[in-house]
Amino acid sequence: MGATILTSLATEILIPVAAVVGIAFALVQWLLVSRVKLTPEKPGSSKDGVSDYLIEEEEGLNEHNVVVKCAEIQNAISEGATSFLVTEYQYVGIFMVAFAVLIFLFLGSVEGFSTKAQPCTYSKDKYCKPALANAGFSTVSFLLGAITSLVSGFLGMKIATYANARTTLEARKGVGKAFITAFRSGAVMGFLLAANGLLVLYIAINLFKLYYGDDWEGLFESITGYGLGGSSMALFGRVGGGIYTKAADVGADLVGKVERNIPEDDPRNPAVIADNVGDNVGDIAGMGSDLFGSYAESSCAALVVASISSFGVNHDFTAMCYPLLISSIGIIVCLITTLFATDFFEIKAVKEIEPALKNQLIISTALMTVGIAIISWIALPSSFTIFNFGKQKAVKNWELFFCVAIGLWAGLVIGFVTEYYTSNAYSPVQDVADSCRTGAATNVIFGLALGYKSVIIPIFAIAISIFVSFSLAAMYGIAVAALGMLSTIATGLAIDAYGPISDNAGGIAEMAGMSHRIRERTDALDAAGNTTAAIGKGFAIGSAALVSLALFGAFVSRAAISTVDVLTPKVFIGLIVGAMLPYWFSAMTMKSVGSAALKMVEEVRRQFNTIPGIMDGSAKPDYATCVKISTDASIKEMIPPGALVMLTPLIVGIFFGVETLSGVLAGSLVSGVQIAISASNTGGAWDNAKKYIEAGASDHARSLGPKGSDPHKAAVIGDTIGDPLKDTSGPSLNILIKLMAVESLVFAPFFATHGGLLFKIF
Amino acid sequence: MGATILTSLATEILIPVAAVVGIAFALVQWLLVSRVKLTPEKPGSSKDGVSDYLIEEEEGLNEHNVVVKCAEIQNAISEGATSFLVTEYQYVGIFMVAFAVLIFLFLGSVEGFSTKAQPCTYSKDKYCKPALANAGFSTVSFLLGAITSLVSGFLGMKIATYANARTTLEARKGVGKAFITAFRSGAVMGFLLAANGLLVLYIAINLFKLYYGDDWEGLFESITGYGLGGSSMALFGRVGGGIYTKAADVGADLVGKVERNIPEDDPRNPAVIADNVGDNVGDIAGMGSDLFGSYAESSCAALVVASISSFGVNHDFTAMCYPLLISSIGIIVCLITTLFATDFFEIKAVKEIEPALKNQLIISTALMTVGIAIISWIALPSSFTIFNFGKQKAVKNWELFFCVAIGLWAGLVIGFVTEYYTSNAYSPVQDVADSCRTGAATNVIFGLALGYKSVIIPIFAIAISIFVSFSLAAMYGIAVAALGMLSTIATGLAIDAYGPISDNAGGIAEMAGMSHRIRERTDALDAAGNTTAAIGKGFAIGSAALVSLALFGAFVSRAAISTVDVLTPKVFIGLIVGAMLPYWFSAMTMKSVGSAALKMVEEVRRQFNTIPGIMDGSAKPDYATCVKISTDASIKEMIPPGALVMLTPLIVGIFFGVETLSGVLAGSLVSGVQIAISASNTGGAWDNAKKYIEAGASDHARSLGPKGSDPHKAAVIGDTIGDPLKDTSGPSLNILIKLMAVESLVFAPFFATHGGLLFKIF
Repeated sequence: MGATILTSLATEILIPVAAVVGIAFALVQWLLVSRVKLTPEKPGSSKDGVSDYLIEEEEGLNEHNVVVKCAEIQNAISEGATSFLVTEYQYVGIFMVAFAVLIFLFLGSVEGFSTKAQPCTYSKDKYCKPALANAGFSTVSFLLGAITSLVSGFLGMKIATYANARTTLEARKGVGKAFITAFRSGAVMGFLLAANGLLVLYIAINLFKLYYGDDWEGLFESITGYGLGGSSMALFGRVGGGIYTKAADVGADLVGKVERNIPEDDPRNPAVIADNVGDNVGDIAGMGSDLFGSYAESSCAALVVASISSFGVNHDFTAMCYPLLISSIGIIVCLITTLFATDFFEIKAVKEIEPALKNQLIISTALMTVGIAIISWIALPSSFTIFNFGKQKAVKNWELFFCVAIGLWAGLVIGFVTEYYTSNAYSPVQDVADSCRTGAATNVIFGLALGYKSVIIPIFAIAISIFVSFSLAAMYGIAVAALGMLSTIATGLAIDAYGPISDNAGGIAEMAGMSHRIRERTDALDAAGNTTAAIGKGFAIGSAALVSLALFGAFVSRAAISTVDVLTPKVFIGLIVGAMLPYWFSAMTMKSVGSAALKMVEEVRRQFNTIPGIMDGSAKPDYATCVKISTDASIKEMIPPGALVMLTPLIVGIFFGVETLSGVLAGSLVSGVQIAISASNTGGAWDNAKKYIEAGASDHARSLGPKGSDPHKAAVIGDTIGDPLKDTSGPSLNILIKLMAVESLVFAPFFATHGGLLFKIF
Repeated sequence: MGATILTSLATEILIPVAAVVGIAFALVQWLLVSRVKLTPEKPGSSKDGVSDYLIEEEEGLNEHNVVVKCAEIQNAISEGATSFLVTEYQYVGIFMVAFAVLIFLFLGSVEGFSTKAQPCTYSKDKYCKPALANAGFSTVSFLLGAITSLVSGFLGMKIATYANARTTLEARKGVGKAFITAFRSGAVMGFLLAANGLLVLYIAINLFKLYYGDDWEGLFESITGYGLGGSSMALFGRVGGGIYTKAADVGADLVGKVERNIPEDDPRNPAVIADNVGDNVGDIAGMGSDLFGSYAESSCAALVVASISSFGVNHDFTAMCYPLLISSIGIIVCLITTLFATDFFEIKAVKEIEPALKNQLIISTALMTVGIAIISWIALPSSFTIFNFGKQKAVKNWELFFCVAIGLWAGLVIGFVTEYYTSNAYSPVQDVADSCRTGAATNVIFGLALGYKSVIIPIFAIAISIFVSFSLAAMYGIAVAALGMLSTIATGLAIDAYGPISDNAGGIAEMAGMSHRIRERTDALDAAGNTTAAIGKGFAIGSAALVSLALFGAFVSRAAISTVDVLTPKVFIGLIVGAMLPYWFSAMTMKSVGSAALKMVEEVRRQFNTIPGIMDGSAKPDYATCVKISTDASIKEMIPPGALVMLTPLIVGIFFGVETLSGVLAGSLVSGVQIAISASNTGGAWDNAKKYIEAGASDHARSLGPKGSDPHKAAVIGDTIGDPLKDTSGPSLNILIKLMAVESLVFAPFFATHGGLLFKIF
């Protein structure tokens, strides 16, 4: 045992300071981005802005008009995105309130709404706060998590729509300037989210402690509601946003590219604004909520396991806050890492973009390894015990360092494998592109095979992380391994958000009628963003697997099950049905995208056929109707898959009990992670196979092109099929596996007391 | 306890008699088929043949020429298929011998090749035969199973290639005649396989008993080699045959239908013979081996569990033979069922075909329920105990009836759900066809979503069967539930084999230049066959899930593991890696089909471009080269996926031990069954969506057609993508999950003694 080097007071200062530094850094980045003016300069005033000179002159275009047009388009995108999120939040707001009531009633009923103190679960000789208090505080933390998640998504969207046109304008001055603008904007979102998530959690813990005092078991059990809140909002964000963005994208492509043969983002396409709005509500707001959810859940899983370990029993505040300290040091590490991209080096050529982004991952991982070592040394006693399903397991501080570090490095491995399978610089995607010679069918067969194959190494990486961290520190090890993978979340989010911002910037350049050279620059930014988006998804899935296993472990502890034996009928049927759920869920989301896209296609065709002059640009298409179709479809279609995920743990827990629920969680975890990885990578590979043919950068690529050739048409079909796989079904599955686990954890006392009705009756 | 009504002597008579009756029935059916003459009749001699009058005259075609041409084509197909199987069997023969040596060495080494008797595993006070004897007899039963499997596949192929041209010729006399010929030929195969499998197993048990005497534990442990032999040959049959058939099919379609716009089975297409050969080696020989493997494995799983239950311990021969008695009664039930299709009713119109086939399933299931009730009553003591992971569980005979019956009826449910999702008479396939309006991309998205959705009800049916049979009679319950599902295997196989025979018959009609009316009749037979093929696959997957769970349970018992706790690191990493294996395997097989198809496309294109006169029919294409490409590709490509499946249990068992292996088995089972169902149904749906548009039987269908329209082209792309999914990857996955389980079971003593090296070292 022994004390920690870092005192409680130092911990209490360090965490909020790190969070505030993160927020301050985000604001500085925002200030730097805002220097790019979206209002046309008066001739005299451009002298004072350092970065306002055009390094290369724009040919043949009136600068004033271009800036005005960009501002207009940005406005339209921002309005569409805001209006969608406000509509979405109204619906999820109703859900949020209803679910909060449910949490309170279910958890309150565990001890029959008694206000008397109860014997603690893990130390029967002590008295803990009543179940009713847990119900109340769980409800509050659920609401806190939900609201933080919504705010995170909303802020991310606002920043992205603030930055996209600015990136376009900066692209006139060179690719380096544009890159820095897009990347800084991504960093604003990354740091705001990471710091906010940490700060709210930290404040909540401190406020709850005022009531709970020394009952840390109850305190951290209630805190798990924070993870549930974050993740349930993320579900609707991912699914709703995913359906929105892909309905618009598929619809726009099917008529625009395939039927009318006009380029992507052409302003004549009525669905073009909806498509750009989609990037912001799906890839930005959805992904922001998703990763915030992962972060909140892994912190909660680690905290709840720690609360019944020696940290919690001995009230060692610093050691207890180890998960939060890792996140704090993560913010500082990411801050330094960001400077490498924005200040220490400068991007001068297109080919430097992708290495710069990949270096971000490598630098942050390397620095973070040192950070973890320091925190593990100063914030942990040299040895301590961890609760492991009824037994206490002795752990050393350096063992915990290994747990966090292996999670961190496994994330990097998954990231690079994802890159290998989805970037067109390597042979897998080139093979897929080559198979387009014989048409769309072979392209799809090769793409599906690629996705399946890309699962192998990430699964081994996850399995090794699990084995090592599980063996060293039981479920606490898994939880901190997940935190390790997410410790560089600020950088990960910055890179992720960079992608859609660049994508939008390209769209705005096209719509504003800017020159081919500008479009080439934004395309280069976007291509790098595609790969980093796939890497980001790899991180999200890998961390989701670890997080949900940790939550699953915490659930089993809290539900007081001693073993989850596959060879009992109750568990096995849970396992096989759980493994089926990701398929059910994917069927719903893919069909939703398909149906919504069909509606979009009809509307776009209708406009092309009925609005005269739309094709020669003399008449403006009706963007608003397309935005409305996407909005309505996604709001309507997000409810059934959302209900499937939210209701399954409740129904299984209430009617079949905690053993079957354990099986369901394990089954959905091991099956869902495979589909999620393969769907994301298949989609990413098709997208980049198409880009490979379009770019024509090698002899091989040119032999397949140009745009409009038969192989290119086959590649476009693959790309369209991949859209719902990589941006709707795949990433939503992360949330499915995490959310079912955290929901089970929150409701564990209720299921353990009142669950398994069906087996009780028969 | 108490004795059984059926005496041992009666059992010893009943089983071989049922098997011989089955074989005799098959021979009678074969005789009836052989009455259709493939040699042109001399004018005078046609008087003596009753069925030789042409009911409807063939217009404008010289009968003599048609018959000669049919005989020629049949010959070419038969030769191609025989030559492929002979080549394939040479390769698997080498594997068979090598693996037999491995089995002997590994199992012999368990007690260091000692020839001394050992204490029995489950009754330590008695002495059992030495491990070396087990090694020897396991090797022998492995070889027996392997050879029976090869012979089954070969016979099936021979019968199918004997029947296809006869079906074509009978089609001239009416659809009813053609149906009966195709169905009878299917029955020959079904009954030969079911009866052969039973007879060989029965003889092996009786011969082994001469040595083992009262050591039934050792006897039935060695018998499990029979299942391993059957299943490992099935793996190569399914994978090799699957790659063969789909490489030829995809290759033929991509150039013929898509590029050259010539119909399916057009004799001008150089890959047309290879395509027809493929049906026989893939769908017939491969599927025959597959279902024989399932049957052998479920019998072995039931027997090995029974041997350590009260049946085995008390040496109750009749009760011990309960699994064989179920199969015996199954043969009789199927025999009666067949008469309903061939003798009691007559098919007069095209629309009666599909109901006739479906009635076969319903009749056999209903009759079999009675059969099971009788056998459970006369062949079981009224109560007995079953070994359940260290405990003995008391079971009543009527409980065992429920176990078998629920398996049987779950099979029917899975069959009908499969039909609903793959037949174009229902809305799911019609929706997929409708989505072709907007192109191939939406077709693929809708098809994938349909496949995912079609998993839901079968999984619930499997889960309920597992829960009921597991709760009633532990692992023995699961094993007999699997047997229940397979008890009507003769009928199932007859229906299954009917499909490819009709498909070939259509091909021969087209190639022989027979009239449009004949082709319409064979097309109708084929369309019904497509749906029944999908139903057959549903059965195969459902039974595979149950069989592998039973084998898994037997493995756990034999390896002396008490629980398979998901929440231990060793088991969990096995679970997640096991869930990944079906993806790895599918990636290999799909890529193999893709690459082989690309080679085929190149060859077909080359022939079209270099052989003058091929398109106007004045020159014959070079069929043999295409046959050779398919043969070479499938032999070469079947090795890596085969090695993956065969080596995984060995590597995991030796290096990681039995706990991790348990996890791998559970993971691959729950994940593989989902992919298998969704892949089969997605492929079946695309195939029938295409047929729906081609047939144009409704206003909706006509609005999408005709052949060559844009929606039809999109549907052809979907069909091509579905080919490897439904005929290579999907059905091979059954074997993956079963084979890994039976292999683990056979090697269990070795792994338990010498396994887990890696954990022993660290």
